[in-house]
Amino acid sequence: TGWRRIVHRIANVELSSTVLLVCCAVLSCFAEQVHQWTLKHLRSIGDYIMGDTEKDSYQAGILWVSWSFFLLVIAIQLTKISPICAGSGIPELKVYLSGVHLAGFFHWKTLFAKIVGLTVLLASGLKVGKAGPWTHINTAITAQLTRLPVFSHLVENERVINQILSGACANGIASCFTAPIGGVLFSIEVTTEYYMLSTYWKAFVTAICGAVCAHFFRPNPFIQPLDQTDRVVFRNLELVVFFVMGIVGGLLGGLFVRVYERMMEWRRKEFFGMSTYHVFPYFFGLISLPLCFWLGEYMRLPLAEAISDLTVSTDLDVKHGWMNTGSIYGNLVLYICVNLMLVVVTITLPIPAGVFMPLIAIGTGMGRVFGEIMHDMYPNSGIARGGYALVGGACLAGGATRSLSSAIIVLEVVNGIEFMLPALFGIMISITVGQRLSRSIYDSILYAKG
Amino acid sequence: TGWRRIVHRIANVELSSTVLLVCCAVLSCFAEQVHQWTLKHLRSIGDYIMGDTEKDSYQAGILWVSWSFFLLVIAIQLTKISPICAGSGIPELKVYLSGVHLAGFFHWKTLFAKIVGLTVLLASGLKVGKAGPWTHINTAITAQLTRLPVFSHLVENERVINQILSGACANGIASCFTAPIGGVLFSIEVTTEYYMLSTYWKAFVTAICGAVCAHFFRPNPFIQPLDQTDRVVFRNLELVVFFVMGIVGGLLGGLFVRVYERMMEWRRKEFFGMSTYHVFPYFFGLISLPLCFWLGEYMRLPLAEAISDLTVSTDLDVKHGWMNTGSIYGNLVLYICVNLMLVVVTITLPIPAGVFMPLIAIGTGMGRVFGEIMHDMYPNSGIARGGYALVGGACLAGGATRSLSSAIIVLEVVNGIEFMLPALFGIMISITVGQRLSRSIYDSILYAKG
Repeated sequence: TGWRRIVHRIANVELSSTVLLVCCAVLSCFAEQVHQWTLKHLRSIGDYIMGDTEKDSYQAGILWVSWSFFLLVIAIQLTKISPICAGSGIPELKVYLSGVHLAGFFHWKTLFAKIVGLTVLLASGLKVGKAGPWTHINTAITAQLTRLPVFSHLVENERVINQILSGACANGIASCFTAPIGGVLFSIEVTTEYYMLSTYWKAFVTAICGAVCAHFFRPNPFIQPLDQTDRVVFRNLELVVFFVMGIVGGLLGGLFVRVYERMMEWRRKEFFGMSTYHVFPYFFGLISLPLCFWLGEYMRLPLAEAISDLTVSTDLDVKHGWMNTGSIYGNLVLYICVNLMLVVVTITLPIPAGVFMPLIAIGTGMGRVFGEIMHDMYPNSGIARGGYALVGGACLAGGATRSLSSAIIVLEVVNGIEFMLPALFGIMISITVGQRLSRSIYDSILYAKG
Repeated sequence: TGWRRIVHRIANVELSSTVLLVCCAVLSCFAEQVHQWTLKHLRSIGDYIMGDTEKDSYQAGILWVSWSFFLLVIAIQLTKISPICAGSGIPELKVYLSGVHLAGFFHWKTLFAKIVGLTVLLASGLKVGKAGPWTHINTAITAQLTRLPVFSHLVENERVINQILSGACANGIASCFTAPIGGVLFSIEVTTEYYMLSTYWKAFVTAICGAVCAHFFRPNPFIQPLDQTDRVVFRNLELVVFFVMGIVGGLLGGLFVRVYERMMEWRRKEFFGMSTYHVFPYFFGLISLPLCFWLGEYMRLPLAEAISDLTVSTDLDVKHGWMNTGSIYGNLVLYICVNLMLVVVTITLPIPAGVFMPLIAIGTGMGRVFGEIMHDMYPNSGIARGGYALVGGACLAGGATRSLSSAIIVLEVVNGIEFMLPALFGIMISITVGQRLSRSIYDSILYAKG
């Protein structure tokens, strides 16, 4: 009968794995909607605290810190359900795809803890990334789908499962950032050493479906697209600046990884015969949250909003406190330094925190510094400061993660393909520099976790 | 001494192959400059013929046809120096990378015949593509470079040579279109079944260097970038149109390959006991060139100019005769049909003619038809007709070549990343449809050539 024939066709591995991935794309898009809706409401509580009291009053501060701390505690407790859900999940995914099957990595408990923990953390004042955890969530959803009877024949073949997981990884990035090309390249770079063309095709189909779904569910882009007046052709001198930016991005990225490694060594030590492992996260929350509040509104902004702010083509406006010291440089440098330190600690905590988005945001700040300097030097030559910020974001992310796809993801997110050449050029330099200093942050996390 | 140490460092395979590829990028950029300069002057002769006499007078027609025919004869004679330089070169490259070493494929005679032949043909009225031949030229330059003593140790290792050639292939597309991402993806898709991450990295470095060089040598883009007013978010109904466009692109692409196969069978037959192989190109030139002239200026336009015309956001202007029948549809449909037929014959001729650019141009025409229909139906809703044209170009090229990278190359060339989702969605459909109808055009050429 008709049903039998459909089941028979599903038995075709190629077709059914593609069907599975499309299902994953649609499901993950649905999960993303629920996530966004919850996040919006959680964030509105933070806005309520600020809006109802006098700006930056100590009452608001205490309330905001308590609220953020409360969310952090929830995330830490959730992680205890399934400790493997801590961190970005990309290093573990890499290990999994290379053949080492980590227990419970795709368990539904991990999925639950990760998705709720991520939502809660993104609403708090901590700087956590979404890309890595979202990729993990996608692969976990896909792995859960393979348990359905229709797809059961796929599980037997490890090669097919790995292809499917690579596809889900591509979709993680694609649906999170509406960046299908970057997603596929990310999955090529991060997950494997060898890549098969059939995987590539599956990854692309999934990523396109995911991005199209995301486009319809979320008409407003994740990050404000680049201003159209900001589209200029870059000139010879600017290439030198992008070169320097690549070097700085590579140095900072390499340094970031080094500091992370030291931090992990230090975390393993005992003080006064006691392990600080479980106390430290609370302690860090109690230090970092008041610091972020005290430094001003720009330090509390969610990462996506900070990136949107930093890539505008006009002067940074006063509304988020970027200009509150008169000059922009002080705040930007403070933003970079403080956040680099906070993020390097955050990713050592047992919470589902990614590293990609924070690096992009910090790098955007770094690029903006270069852009502002160039703008001060050549005020009338139409320096595209927003574009510089983008290039900086790509450079720093490349310097730490060593993935060229960072540049492509950044460009796709903000529709800034005019800056493709500078960004790719910068990231090429920054990866080369970073490679001399340390291993990639993902490899480093793997090493630290053993 | 210092020199010895430099030589020793060069001996490092990874480094020296990267140095080799960067040299290739710079050299090919230089070759491109010479090529462009010659092409400009050759084309100015064509313009001179048109400018000096009354428009479309029969004197001008006879002169133009003679001139184009003369150029065609030169190209045919050049191909006799090295018959392997005929065609796009990508199928042969694929065979070479899979281990079958074709005699003389990278010989300097082939290189010479291909580069001169390509230049001459691009100046004539024939619709030949540049992407494939340019990729072949790049790989040939690289292969010649490996004969230098400094790089001699690379030749021993076949794996390294294949990596280098993949990198050169990526650079071919990147420097031709200033499209590094598309170039790398093209080299992934077209050249191999398995892809190594180290190749990927080399390909990207080469492609970035090539694109940066191209940017500095050629500040004006190859194809006019998309108009900035043409940047709109697509809506739900439009996705249906892109879906239909994908189906039409896939059908036309598949049909194109089928017709090509028939044509090759037919070319092998003898008439009246005589092989038509050597006479046919001249015969084709004498039929097609007057036809192109007679149909009007828009039919004689170089492909890049036609694409620039078709992707404008406003009405197609009168200057190239696109509107000479009052309605745009007649001319566009004629453009599509006539060119599909001419191109399918052109690629069977013994001349260095690519297939990628003509397909993009014809597809752009097809997309423009859809765009114009939508614009007529919803005149006030800001239908981005230029964007539709782009999506059409990607769909037709995808339908025939089965490479997703076509979409990315098209988008990179015209800076139209806003249309990334529609283009990727359309090409996904068109590849799926095309795959049902025939093999890819490159595989088909391989099969036809044995």
